[in-house]
Amino acid sequence: MSSVVIAPIAESLAAFLQKNNFSFIATIVDNHTYRHCYPAIKPLLNKHTLIRIKSGEEQKHLQTCETIWEALTKANFDRHALVLNLGGGVIGDMGGFCAATYKRGITFAQIPTTLLSQVDASVGGKLGIDFQGFKNHIGVFQLPETVLIDTAFLKTLPASELRSGFAEIIKHCLIADGAKWDEIRRKELADQDWQDLVAHSVAVKQRVVEQDPTEKGLRKILNFGHTLGHAVETYFLTRSAEAAPKRGGQTGRLLHGEAIAVGMIAEAYIAFTRQMIEERLLAQIEEYVFSVYGRVALTDADIEPILALTLQDKKNKGKQVRMALLDGYGSCAYDIAVTKTEMQQALDYYRG
Amino acid sequence: MSSVVIAPIAESLAAFLQKNNFSFIATIVDNHTYRHCYPAIKPLLNKHTLIRIKSGEEQKHLQTCETIWEALTKANFDRHALVLNLGGGVIGDMGGFCAATYKRGITFAQIPTTLLSQVDASVGGKLGIDFQGFKNHIGVFQLPETVLIDTAFLKTLPASELRSGFAEIIKHCLIADGAKWDEIRRKELADQDWQDLVAHSVAVKQRVVEQDPTEKGLRKILNFGHTLGHAVETYFLTRSAEAAPKRGGQTGRLLHGEAIAVGMIAEAYIAFTRQMIEERLLAQIEEYVFSVYGRVALTDADIEPILALTLQDKKNKGKQVRMALLDGYGSCAYDIAVTKTEMQQALDYYRG
Repeated sequence: MSSVVIAPIAESLAAFLQKNNFSFIATIVDNHTYRHCYPAIKPLLNKHTLIRIKSGEEQKHLQTCETIWEALTKANFDRHALVLNLGGGVIGDMGGFCAATYKRGITFAQIPTTLLSQVDASVGGKLGIDFQGFKNHIGVFQLPETVLIDTAFLKTLPASELRSGFAEIIKHCLIADGAKWDEIRRKELADQDWQDLVAHSVAVKQRVVEQDPTEKGLRKILNFGHTLGHAVETYFLTRSAEAAPKRGGQTGRLLHGEAIAVGMIAEAYIAFTRQMIEERLLAQIEEYVFSVYGRVALTDADIEPILALTLQDKKNKGKQVRMALLDGYGSCAYDIAVTKTEMQQALDYYRG
Repeated sequence: MSSVVIAPIAESLAAFLQKNNFSFIATIVDNHTYRHCYPAIKPLLNKHTLIRIKSGEEQKHLQTCETIWEALTKANFDRHALVLNLGGGVIGDMGGFCAATYKRGITFAQIPTTLLSQVDASVGGKLGIDFQGFKNHIGVFQLPETVLIDTAFLKTLPASELRSGFAEIIKHCLIADGAKWDEIRRKELADQDWQDLVAHSVAVKQRVVEQDPTEKGLRKILNFGHTLGHAVETYFLTRSAEAAPKRGGQTGRLLHGEAIAVGMIAEAYIAFTRQMIEERLLAQIEEYVFSVYGRVALTDADIEPILALTLQDKKNKGKQVRMALLDGYGSCAYDIAVTKTEMQQALDYYRG
């Protein structure tokens, strides 16, 4: 298991570099973290190669990997080099994938700067890129040497990003800690204690991943809300910003957590219809998640393509869609085959 | 450790498929193995996806991977699918890399059809592709589920390919088994017992890889002859066929084993000058390797670019070239820093 250090980055990064002796260091940033986060770590690094890429999920593809591999090659990086991924999930997943495949793998460390990557992407060693419209379709499992989390970076985020990351915190509570769920659902988003929630989510995720690093079994519970959530996310990703419907007063792309919020309500409904959870829990989830995320407007025409996309989910077996479904208060089961009709009804339920 | 089965493919593949329950099967072939080897396995497979690519090392790049990933995606391959790599090192390394990164890794099996891949590439889980002229620059370590070796496939090879693969057999004897070295060096190439030698090489390689799967230490001895050998190979690879000098009466590209033969003599010379091996062993290596491979004509102008290419060797630390050097009869040391002057003198010695 990689170490996860939650502390001011000036302390944690300095300690990490002092403990190790890297031949070369590269820092991968996007335009956002270059401006807002890189200044905090630059003074801690000596000579290093800065690799700056554009911001956004649409950069998470093979061509960007080629740019990164080329930069490492040109700087003569050897197997004793370090790659620091300073950014959100895109930088972490893609920079990690590039490091894990450069010369068959060099050391990398994650410095997640978004709430989403602090509570989810940076822990657990899932790396990868999108391919032909499919999310994280090409990748590997490889743990980073360390994960350095500084919640001060969260202050650089727009409110929508904070809200997006919060969906994974909700998920971690729902699948593993009913008491924590009771705690967070009684607070507004603005009143949450991020330092505490980040530590809680990391602990939940690490405990699960430790038992099943490559997702043969238990780890699949982390996918609660993600079968339909990913399909919704991919669907909106492949549509142009103009074509996307209004959502909670906003137009444009759906953020990851916003899509997972849809998935959590819809999949909780499936769990309820199968009598795996009580109506009370479904009602709690619905009430709270709608209050934070609003209701994404889905038209009749959206449903079929969303359902089709669930067929590409990595947890499926053959043409059988398999879900992680809640089976209690703070508890989740996995590998449950669900039918297309069930998913359709769940999305209908979501639409109200 | 993956199982390695040396047996007629009709037996070994049938048994492997019967033991497992794959949702989908893809077979990756090149033009050569499509014609000469695929007919032997086709009757053993039910419905499967055939992925056929052009033959040759120059196909071992990212664009071909995209073709393979796309074929798997279009056929809706899930995580319970199998990829069979039927071919030499190019197919095995690249097909394995594609399988190991598709949806973060699906099962693959190697069916090596060349001597080189039977005694080397298929065992040990080194996967990858060339990138911007650097061999195996992008890749991962991932063991195949099984390796199915049928020496009957060797009959489909041109003599030059058999000779190329034999270089790795020589290497395995030199680094790990002095008695076997005495046995093979007393026989002509045509008189060698391939079934016996393949089993011997696989055993040597597995023993080493088992102790150090990701090449942190001991595994580096398998790189004897490969620091200068790879540089020579890359150098000739990047030159056009016309520009390549005459070698042993042939023109055109240098095969992997032919380049490793250069490396083994040159690196044995470095070991000798450092008093790590006796003159008698150097003389034996020189005599036998030249008798099998002839002497590759290297001009003054070739030396500098070859030396420059050693800087990209994966075993280096920073700008320091590190070699595996013989340190006895059937014994090898690793991580030994050598100077550019030593390498230059070694190539001069090779040139005679």
